[in-house]
Amino acid sequence: MSKYFSSRFASLEPYVPGEQPQDMSYIKLNTNESPFDPPKEVVPVIREAARSIRLYSDPESNELRQAIADYYGLEPENVMATNGSDEALNYAFMAFCDEEHPIVFPEITYGFYPVIAKLNNIPYETISLREDYTIDVREYEGINKNICIANPNAPTGIALSLEEVEQIVRTNPDNIIIIDEAYVDFGARSAVPLLYRYDNLLITQTFSKSRSLAGGRLGFILGAKDLIADMNTLRNASNPYNINRMTAKAGIVTLRENTYFKNSCQAIQFNRRYTSRALEALGFEILPSSANFLFIRSERIGGEELYLRLKEKGVLIRHFSDPKISDWNRVTIGTKVQMDKFLAKVEEIFVEQDEEGAK
Amino acid sequence: MSKYFSSRFASLEPYVPGEQPQDMSYIKLNTNESPFDPPKEVVPVIREAARSIRLYSDPESNELRQAIADYYGLEPENVMATNGSDEALNYAFMAFCDEEHPIVFPEITYGFYPVIAKLNNIPYETISLREDYTIDVREYEGINKNICIANPNAPTGIALSLEEVEQIVRTNPDNIIIIDEAYVDFGARSAVPLLYRYDNLLITQTFSKSRSLAGGRLGFILGAKDLIADMNTLRNASNPYNINRMTAKAGIVTLRENTYFKNSCQAIQFNRRYTSRALEALGFEILPSSANFLFIRSERIGGEELYLRLKEKGVLIRHFSDPKISDWNRVTIGTKVQMDKFLAKVEEIFVEQDEEGAK
Repeated sequence: MSKYFSSRFASLEPYVPGEQPQDMSYIKLNTNESPFDPPKEVVPVIREAARSIRLYSDPESNELRQAIADYYGLEPENVMATNGSDEALNYAFMAFCDEEHPIVFPEITYGFYPVIAKLNNIPYETISLREDYTIDVREYEGINKNICIANPNAPTGIALSLEEVEQIVRTNPDNIIIIDEAYVDFGARSAVPLLYRYDNLLITQTFSKSRSLAGGRLGFILGAKDLIADMNTLRNASNPYNINRMTAKAGIVTLRENTYFKNSCQAIQFNRRYTSRALEALGFEILPSSANFLFIRSERIGGEELYLRLKEKGVLIRHFSDPKISDWNRVTIGTKVQMDKFLAKVEEIFVEQDEEGAK
Repeated sequence: MSKYFSSRFASLEPYVPGEQPQDMSYIKLNTNESPFDPPKEVVPVIREAARSIRLYSDPESNELRQAIADYYGLEPENVMATNGSDEALNYAFMAFCDEEHPIVFPEITYGFYPVIAKLNNIPYETISLREDYTIDVREYEGINKNICIANPNAPTGIALSLEEVEQIVRTNPDNIIIIDEAYVDFGARSAVPLLYRYDNLLITQTFSKSRSLAGGRLGFILGAKDLIADMNTLRNASNPYNINRMTAKAGIVTLRENTYFKNSCQAIQFNRRYTSRALEALGFEILPSSANFLFIRSERIGGEELYLRLKEKGVLIRHFSDPKISDWNRVTIGTKVQMDKFLAKVEEIFVEQDEEGAK
């Protein structure tokens, strides 16, 4: 820390993203990317958009917001496009939370929430999960505080029902409820229909997971027009040209190629079931996932050890050092070939363990 | 404003970017883009990078930072890459300014500075320009406050000498001096050599102007390693994957194609001289510009009227409503063909005025 750094941030610990080795030598099951390329139309539209790269992109992202609005039956004024959904979450926390308006989220959830709360000097409270790692919705009812919930939750993968989400939104009418739907396309129900009835609901989604555009940086947030306008005030005051030309066009194409999208989400769900059964056969405990990852634990091996041994064998999965979940690992669902390799390496590790134990 | 919007931002007025019509029907001389495409290698490398778009970009932008560091004789730890230089400016203001550390900038300068100061609840002070619109460096010497100066200044285009910049940096050793070099490649001297001697200096640059990548969104900030680390703490806490895959590669290519870059900067300087002389012949007052724009005023027509009449005729220039400069217009330097069309339209307007006056 330099002597010039503002004391405002003296205690800030940044979110540590998962490893992003740039050499492609790993089977990469650690940051929940899609194993499938986006629709084949994406590369040509990016190439075409790159031909106008000398000109600024549209600071309002009008064409993209119209496409997102059309897809969800909303209006463009209900949509703000962002450089990944992290940027959307940051603007939502900034806009609606402050010293007098703290935010509440589950104790185990996406590690970025406490970071952006601290960054913006927003008090936050966490609520424990149940013993089975589910969210107890009753603990969020009528608490009169802003709330942020990932649905499905990360890194557990467990989803709330639409009725449970509505219960939280309905009973906290004077507060903003942010539902982070980064993984919703893999088996949970989106809260988008609730937007027609509640003006205190914000929903973030991303093109990084189900739409295979992680490297393009695109997310968005949906909500009542005046909430979106408030966040646009902050966006225009900090990063007005946040979406580049190529990614805006790529996003529009992936929304149009809906059959491809549905098929690739179904393939992930199929591979998830397949991997889940195979891990069960190996004795793993697996939380019921509605996401493109599995949260797994084995009595035979610690979470960190499994992570390290798999890394040695060329497979990256995600381990979290938080002691509450350090027995666990999060494994992204890839192609069937990738999952077979992952499973083979896990078996190999168990065999090696048995051999080491027998010595 | 919604009833949920934090009172922190109640008085925030966002920066209004220049018009960005997406239909290409205007001669666009209003937002200081390059009239030249980037080197021809850019489109193919973007296409190639798009093929890996399903994977996250490198949150550290290591390859890009290495290329920028090599270009300037620095190390990668002296560089943070950002989504345009606006994002860099915001992180610099956030990191080093607060209630106890106000920031000072010229009264007439890039309109984004007061906006990010307000956004971050940072007190700011402005110092008037001289009557001739130059910055009086003596007013910034030893003031013991953080300072941000655009060099060349915007929208005047007037540059400080390297000695003048050093004088400001040297006499405020306990404060951060931010030099915004968005336009430096068009004729001013960069303060980069001062980085070897001063640890309180930050320099922002952008790929949006001289490097023809406005639509890709790429800027960077240079400084001592601990200053860069502080800003990275904020970046990782708000928008860790801020650079997309395609733009990172495009940036690297433009740094490599240095002859092309120098030629295109020279062409702008040539067209600037040409336009300047022609406007002088039409009776305009023109500030001495080291940027890719001219700041011009005529006794024959008000600033807003000239802007509006040119817009009717299909030429966009930039007018600012601030009464201190509302007599003026900022005209981006384009190709010679564009400047000839602009000049012809100005003459046309003067002829129309004479005819209207004669009626």
